[in-house]
Amino acid sequence: MTGTEVLTGRIADQNGPWLSDRLLKLGVDVAHITICGDRPADLTAQLRFLTEQGVDLVVTSGGLGPTADDLTVSTVAEFCNRELLLDPGLEEHIAGIIRSFRPDAPDLDAGPTRIGIRKQAHVPIGATALPPTGTAPGVVVPAVPGDRPVPTIVILPGPPGELQAMWPSAVTSPAVADVLSRADDLQQETVRAYGLHEAQLAETLRRAETEIADLDRLEITTCLRHGELDMVTRFASGDAHIYRRLLGVLIEHHERQIFSLDGATIDDRLIDALDGRSIGTAESCTGGLVAARLTDRPGSSAYVMGGVVSYSNDAKSDLIDVPAEMIVAHGAVSEQVAAAMAEGARHRLKVDVAVSTTGIAGPGGGTEAKPVGTVCFGVAIEGRPTYTVTRRFPGDRERIRTLSTTAALHLVVAQLDQG
Amino acid sequence: MTGTEVLTGRIADQNGPWLSDRLLKLGVDVAHITICGDRPADLTAQLRFLTEQGVDLVVTSGGLGPTADDLTVSTVAEFCNRELLLDPGLEEHIAGIIRSFRPDAPDLDAGPTRIGIRKQAHVPIGATALPPTGTAPGVVVPAVPGDRPVPTIVILPGPPGELQAMWPSAVTSPAVADVLSRADDLQQETVRAYGLHEAQLAETLRRAETEIADLDRLEITTCLRHGELDMVTRFASGDAHIYRRLLGVLIEHHERQIFSLDGATIDDRLIDALDGRSIGTAESCTGGLVAARLTDRPGSSAYVMGGVVSYSNDAKSDLIDVPAEMIVAHGAVSEQVAAAMAEGARHRLKVDVAVSTTGIAGPGGGTEAKPVGTVCFGVAIEGRPTYTVTRRFPGDRERIRTLSTTAALHLVVAQLDQG
Repeated sequence: MTGTEVLTGRIADQNGPWLSDRLLKLGVDVAHITICGDRPADLTAQLRFLTEQGVDLVVTSGGLGPTADDLTVSTVAEFCNRELLLDPGLEEHIAGIIRSFRPDAPDLDAGPTRIGIRKQAHVPIGATALPPTGTAPGVVVPAVPGDRPVPTIVILPGPPGELQAMWPSAVTSPAVADVLSRADDLQQETVRAYGLHEAQLAETLRRAETEIADLDRLEITTCLRHGELDMVTRFASGDAHIYRRLLGVLIEHHERQIFSLDGATIDDRLIDALDGRSIGTAESCTGGLVAARLTDRPGSSAYVMGGVVSYSNDAKSDLIDVPAEMIVAHGAVSEQVAAAMAEGARHRLKVDVAVSTTGIAGPGGGTEAKPVGTVCFGVAIEGRPTYTVTRRFPGDRERIRTLSTTAALHLVVAQLDQG
Repeated sequence: MTGTEVLTGRIADQNGPWLSDRLLKLGVDVAHITICGDRPADLTAQLRFLTEQGVDLVVTSGGLGPTADDLTVSTVAEFCNRELLLDPGLEEHIAGIIRSFRPDAPDLDAGPTRIGIRKQAHVPIGATALPPTGTAPGVVVPAVPGDRPVPTIVILPGPPGELQAMWPSAVTSPAVADVLSRADDLQQETVRAYGLHEAQLAETLRRAETEIADLDRLEITTCLRHGELDMVTRFASGDAHIYRRLLGVLIEHHERQIFSLDGATIDDRLIDALDGRSIGTAESCTGGLVAARLTDRPGSSAYVMGGVVSYSNDAKSDLIDVPAEMIVAHGAVSEQVAAAMAEGARHRLKVDVAVSTTGIAGPGGGTEAKPVGTVCFGVAIEGRPTYTVTRRFPGDRERIRTLSTTAALHLVVAQLDQG
């Protein structure tokens, strides 16, 4: 990975986790992710480090742009002791791309734009250019065996869309295919739980160690995120029977909290649980996040009719018929109002299921009785009494809104599963 | 950084960029971010690499939990040749925290929970424990000078909330304060533009090189994100006059596209432009993302009244009065419907300003006349004709939704600025 923009905190590295995930699914064990700025010396130091670790494959992302701070190709070429050569066909290809989306561009055959294009069309001798999916081509530099070996290095662009679109041609290039042919037969399985504390899972895993022989052949990682606890296990395919025994122990202790054994997310589970019914939202403290989450899935317009962000009390009354006197009597953050919001949304949006959130995301607005983090939920389902519950979430505004959004989905699934 | 959960693609590393940003503001030049799994050998290799690079400070995050896969403290202790000692006071402190949020916990004085707590209460000899902000304490291990020098190593927990809460006590610990006292006097400035292509900025920067002496004393990074182009410049405070000349060249060429010279985001600019007016939303393809973005700011309830996610045609008609015949005549994705949505939201939500989005986020639903990525926007402002525009965005569903959300904010600011 390169890119001062990742290093200086403006963007989180999306490419590292994405590439790791793809490589793992190809059986590649990813040992290190490194990020450096746009200084050639730092990138060279990391390439040397990774080479010394004996890795078979290095994938870089970023630093392929037309600006002078983008130096990945030339730095890798120097590291591999390969000269850079201009590929005239590639140069014309890039110019054509720029022409197509910048018809107003100045003369591409001269001046600074041509310098940028020419820079991007330089490829190390013996390397393969990957056709651009944006404007920048990728490069695969084959390994050099021998006394001073160099691993195969794949150079990909930084924008995640371009990188992901280029990945298939990188994987099928001869030098990468050769590395992959020697990869292990690894498997990865994910169990997801909600409402389970990491310390409880740690206890169960310690117990499992005493009950299951060879449990240490599994590489187990636990990760708490947005209130959900993921347990990811990697193992050689021959050890699948050990993993099945572990699953048995987990289900025995935490069946109520486990909602997924096959990596399915709560968003996936919600679609199953809806089973053709339509859904809508009425949000206050989550401010649209629940609706955004429901609609991030292709095809969601088939079952998401819409939602209301009733941030003000007037909006609650005008758009989804929450009685103004109810808000005065119980406060906007109350189970009564949550119920009325869900029922109002169900009627106004003409949906089978509606979920509501109203709470105090902070930092202001908390009271002793209803401190920051207090959130009331309502789930209204056609033909059933409306369900309400109050939760208290830790953390700052962003965390409370995120935890509330995840909680809303879990509550809908739990209610639908009971029906 | 440690954590197989970051390595295997389930979560993007938030801590690396956050820590880099903080360190930079303290004048520390961050050269490398590295991520490895929960294997001690990989972490040791990275510590050795960073030490060989001659860094003064290493900050790790993650691997402090009670589970057996959390091995950062013991690995660092071994790397530094320091024995681990149990801190009984710290052990009681952690037990107290667990007791407070798990009143149902089994007996903490025995069994697997006590093993986990005791593990977390081990500190390398000569190191300082940082009080837990979650359940895990942090550790500061002071540098060792001499023939085989070891840098100061700060061990922080993985959950971003805990890490960020612990940062102030890490920074003020004597070993870290000593490193910071030797930090450079670096400055960082950010310019943001919208509707500017990276290649255009590259041209301008090449031109600036010929016009401004010593421009190479500035470290310039450009980064395209969500359709916005950021240019971040780092320089020694003595070189501020060079940066001011660069700013002059940028404004001369791109005044129309530059919306921020001081690092302010378009969200910040929107608050200024609203100048006390209220705002609401009517969203179709963005599905709540615009409302969520407006409400992610503390205190936004003072000016955000709410929004409608009118995903279905019925919701458009029922909730915000878009005539059904208009949808039939022009299609839901049309400037006519965008205008009606914005006006309907303005009236129903009783707001001064309303913005609407209706488009085809894909992957299905595109036609030759309105391909995937086509999005119509409307901005309705009290006392003015409603503004509408159609844009076409590249990329997949997620990208189109994100670019549309950012575009909506820019359109509102542009319209308000004209008024």
